[in-house]
Amino acid sequence: MNTYGKTFRLSIFGESHGPAVGIVIDGLPPGFAPDMGEAAREMSRRAPGQSALSTPRAEADAVEVVSGLFEGKTTGAPLCAMIRSTNTQSEDYQKNLPRPGHVDYTAHIKYKGFSDYRGGGHFSGRLTAPLVFAGALAKQLMPNVKIKAQPILIGGKPPSEETILSAKADGDSVGGVIECAVDGLPAGLGEPFFGSVESCLSALLFSIPAVKAVEFDYGFKLADMRGSQSNKTPFGILGGITTGRPLKFTVAIKPTPSIAMEQDTVDLATNQPAKITVAGRHDPCIVPRAVPVVEAAAAIGLLDLWLTGGFSTAMVTTEIYA
Amino acid sequence: MNTYGKTFRLSIFGESHGPAVGIVIDGLPPGFAPDMGEAAREMSRRAPGQSALSTPRAEADAVEVVSGLFEGKTTGAPLCAMIRSTNTQSEDYQKNLPRPGHVDYTAHIKYKGFSDYRGGGHFSGRLTAPLVFAGALAKQLMPNVKIKAQPILIGGKPPSEETILSAKADGDSVGGVIECAVDGLPAGLGEPFFGSVESCLSALLFSIPAVKAVEFDYGFKLADMRGSQSNKTPFGILGGITTGRPLKFTVAIKPTPSIAMEQDTVDLATNQPAKITVAGRHDPCIVPRAVPVVEAAAAIGLLDLWLTGGFSTAMVTTEIYA
Amino acid sequence: MNTYGKTFRLSIFGESHGPAVGIVIDGLPPGFAPDMGEAAREMSRRAPGQSALSTPRAEADAVEVVSGLFEGKTTGAPLCAMIRSTNTQSEDYQKNLPRPGHVDYTAHIKYKGFSDYRGGGHFSGRLTAPLVFAGALAKQLMPNVKIKAQPILIGGKPPSEETILSAKADGDSVGGVIECAVDGLPAGLGEPFFGSVESCLSALLFSIPAVKAVEFDYGFKLADMRGSQSNKTPFGILGGITTGRPLKFTVAIKPTPSIAMEQDTVDLATNQPAKITVAGRHDPCIVPRAVPVVEAAAAIGLLDLWLTGGFSTAMVTTEIYA
Amino acid sequence: MNTYGKTFRLSIFGESHGPAVGIVIDGLPPGFAPDMGEAAREMSRRAPGQSALSTPRAEADAVEVVSGLFEGKTTGAPLCAMIRSTNTQSEDYQKNLPRPGHVDYTAHIKYKGFSDYRGGGHFSGRLTAPLVFAGALAKQLMPNVKIKAQPILIGGKPPSEETILSAKADGDSVGGVIECAVDGLPAGLGEPFFGSVESCLSALLFSIPAVKAVEFDYGFKLADMRGSQSNKTPFGILGGITTGRPLKFTVAIKPTPSIAMEQDTVDLATNQPAKITVAGRHDPCIVPRAVPVVEAAAAIGLLDLWLTGGFSTAMVTTEIYA
Repeated sequence: MNTYGKTFRLSIFGESHGPAVGIVIDGLPPGFAPDMGEAAREMSRRAPGQSALSTPRAEADAVEVVSGLFEGKTTGAPLCAMIRSTNTQSEDYQKNLPRPGHVDYTAHIKYKGFSDYRGGGHFSGRLTAPLVFAGALAKQLMPNVKIKAQPILIGGKPPSEETILSAKADGDSVGGVIECAVDGLPAGLGEPFFGSVESCLSALLFSIPAVKAVEFDYGFKLADMRGSQSNKTPFGILGGITTGRPLKFTVAIKPTPSIAMEQDTVDLATNQPAKITVAGRHDPCIVPRAVPVVEAAAAIGLLDLWLTGGFSTAMVTTEIYA
Repeated sequence: MNTYGKTFRLSIFGESHGPAVGIVIDGLPPGFAPDMGEAAREMSRRAPGQSALSTPRAEADAVEVVSGLFEGKTTGAPLCAMIRSTNTQSEDYQKNLPRPGHVDYTAHIKYKGFSDYRGGGHFSGRLTAPLVFAGALAKQLMPNVKIKAQPILIGGKPPSEETILSAKADGDSVGGVIECAVDGLPAGLGEPFFGSVESCLSALLFSIPAVKAVEFDYGFKLADMRGSQSNKTPFGILGGITTGRPLKFTVAIKPTPSIAMEQDTVDLATNQPAKITVAGRHDPCIVPRAVPVVEAAAAIGLLDLWLTGGFSTAMVTTEIYA
Repeated sequence: MNTYGKTFRLSIFGESHGPAVGIVIDGLPPGFAPDMGEAAREMSRRAPGQSALSTPRAEADAVEVVSGLFEGKTTGAPLCAMIRSTNTQSEDYQKNLPRPGHVDYTAHIKYKGFSDYRGGGHFSGRLTAPLVFAGALAKQLMPNVKIKAQPILIGGKPPSEETILSAKADGDSVGGVIECAVDGLPAGLGEPFFGSVESCLSALLFSIPAVKAVEFDYGFKLADMRGSQSNKTPFGILGGITTGRPLKFTVAIKPTPSIAMEQDTVDLATNQPAKITVAGRHDPCIVPRAVPVVEAAAAIGLLDLWLTGGFSTAMVTTEIYA
Repeated sequence: MNTYGKTFRLSIFGESHGPAVGIVIDGLPPGFAPDMGEAAREMSRRAPGQSALSTPRAEADAVEVVSGLFEGKTTGAPLCAMIRSTNTQSEDYQKNLPRPGHVDYTAHIKYKGFSDYRGGGHFSGRLTAPLVFAGALAKQLMPNVKIKAQPILIGGKPPSEETILSAKADGDSVGGVIECAVDGLPAGLGEPFFGSVESCLSALLFSIPAVKAVEFDYGFKLADMRGSQSNKTPFGILGGITTGRPLKFTVAIKPTPSIAMEQDTVDLATNQPAKITVAGRHDPCIVPRAVPVVEAAAAIGLLDLWLTGGFSTAMVTTEIYA
């Protein structure tokens, strides 16, 4: 269930306040020398504690590779990468008071009270760190493909730090919209139906905590067009298969549910109404840190389709080996 | 690749103008007596040729069950259901002239010129017929769950036949937006990350031809809210897991690309610009026929999560057996 | 569960006395023109009713392809093939009297009394007919690989019709041992651990009804050797990966449990001891008809490993297209 | 590819001389408190360096759990367990001289020269350490099931240390045969065809390095019987499904290929014949250490079938929670 991919296969593990989060990546071609410095740069785009806009929980997010690399090159065996947790404040979380708008209640029900409730446990946004690492490798394996995401709306307005800082000052939070453009894909990626490019990418994108909507190409705008107009738009995907034209998609990110204001909740032990004031260190806006995660999801999904769909590894990695 | 599900597993096959389309459904609990009349009613909601609003290609879409049923009850073995094609006009399709906005070009590239180009071949909306059948069984296995979809916009306006007939009169087509509400789900359905309710349903919804956007709960509207406001909305899904509250999602359907007006294309044999006038029998608006398909996708995805997630078959089918 | 393969993927369906048995094959490369006459010859090697050595149930086992072929070539979409049942005598089976040594009892328990008990239902050897068809296509896609099985023991002795006819005359049955040799494989097929050549082939071979043992290379004899001797044997597989040398494996087939002699059983309705005399039409020795099934299993497993393991489709099918 | 299971799912990683080997286990029921002392005892049965009969490479094989446990109980999220390597002598291995009878050559071919050649790399028997850990948890989740393996032949004779020490004195090695008995299984475990008990267990058993043959119930002996005799044997599996009777299976283990005597090989750099004397620290007989691995494979396969087949987690773990 915590696994993605047919050919480029990922398995993620870890809890926010556990010893480590990590990933096993299977299906890497042998002989690939990942640029670990470049991967670290991708990781740092997502890492917390970098500015007043994000949580003050500072984590270096250093990646330890414990398998699958030998003399700097992939061996063909699974690559396991771990990211140790170094800066946790678990006392900020209260087992019986689920935070509104958060996974706390649903995870409690699903796992019969045994889930690790601290910081969202296994459902934490911290699990996107290993995804960004996998995405960094995927990008390097498709050197001619350019994947570039950016916020286009924050709090309903063109992105500005002011919107975020204003929400933070109020003990509140804001969400936003991220657009991602992908250039350089060949025509013919994707599989029929449940393996369509949209199906694969949306499954990955909706696995990013806080994503609540995904559009491809012109998305909802297409629904308002006539066919004569729609047929002239430059689709990146038709019938679930890439056209060879640039691909564009958009995701909606809901506001961080962990806010400083006092909120209503229910005490799970007594089943009585209760008040909660979320302490802890939280992002007033997760959108900037979600940008590299969206890119990683795109890279992972597209590389898997690439390798699955009869496009050989050699084609992907030609430049790497040259 | 043409397969969906962990526990309630589907495998679809067929081409629009081939002898039949069909489905193999594995993971049905034994002893379930499907109401085939009810399934036929669901099928007829999707079937073509029912009004001036849809294609005049009249297909009865009768389902032949060739395995998995014995004395009217499921045996526990895979159920294969076939729907024969009885009314095809293959001469309407030209191999070398891909219809703009359609899968014709991308399928040609992906399958190296060997795909069945007639009526979209395996990518045809006709493949949603077996999905509706599977969805009908899934609904019957969750008798307390109510899944109800309806168009909320057609051609950018509140749904009306006039909008569709006006487009048809112009040799054009329109798209629309469908909203689906699901009541009666227990809390706790869904799996972490790639198995989130949103990931599973979106993968199914984007496998429906013409779907280009999917929102859950308040979708893009959430992106404009502050956390204090968002946290008060009645989420059907939190952290990818059902809350036990009603679930709502919305999909955008692009206009039918097959329109009667002359359009520009490229001749695949000569690589030269060409004109195409799509003959054939096409829907000026696919939205009404997509409504039962959207419901079927929801039923399939939710039943699979239900059976996968530690909710026993017996719980699902209690009422069936009573 | 009724599905095999990562890249060359099969899904089988059907019951012995139902309308049809069949298979959906996904992952066939597009543009492949199967030799259907050759496939029919493979099918006839397995088909019943051909001699006094096999069941008098005569079935033509004609294959109807309902999808995935267009103008005689694969389209890249799933190929569904069906084999109709034409000659069933269902009155030979008694629901409440499980045949000793047969699946009747275990299927009854597993499917809570709802399994189709006639002729073994979904567990029937008849389900190997679609496997032989899939194997025939797999063989054609690996034209340089020669797969050849033969009985090496029947009833504990060198194969002879006399052994079989003698058992038949006694209302009894015999089993045997089949050896299969595979020549022409490249080195490097197979995956680590659960994807080893032995793991993949044994999973397929043990899915053939009546197979109770599988050896690779020198099998049990290797267990008696010293390393200095074992290291000199010409292994076809080392570490789960093909060596490029010929591969050999051996399977044990238990005697047909359906015999004419009166046997003890238990009445499932009353839970009391009972006697059963199996009427019906049964093989006194299934070994000869199992030979093409063993070859098919080998072809299916090896082609899937071939396509999965970074060996491109083009390499497999070079000769087909030439 | 390095993944097993439908419901109780494993993903293994690591190389013999890399920093660690490990496993991600997904599908554990939440609230299960594994007895880590008992798991350590199982691990120690397999660990090297315990007597003159096994390799002097002493590894504590201490298990570090980095996710999925909270306050001593499973959370429902994936459990990742790592075993650090502490005692490696990598200089014993020569990249260009593949050891006869070993994976060295086939891994070199498969991974294009990039595999970690030290000690078998990812194909090492050391990867069975995480399997034994997973098997220990699986055993604890089926408290009424007793799984007991033992050697029945070593070097072709009843097991004795003398046989092993004699081979060791000659710089040689011996193999053997292990029999495993499983008591306490319910009737009805297993799935049709590719999901038969034999298919599932054999896929796991053949993933254990050095296993070259697997028999179920009376195996090859059944092939020599008549049906009237075979039908009276107490089958543990019929039609791929458990009968509720004790289950027995047997595996053949080839002799350790790493022996001290000088052997012929080929230099992969020059493609010329060469001599190799395997230094390093190797087991003269791997059979005793394989015994707990065989048990673990059985426990893993049977628990997965148990959880998959409609037997609820609650049934499995009733005693655990009581």
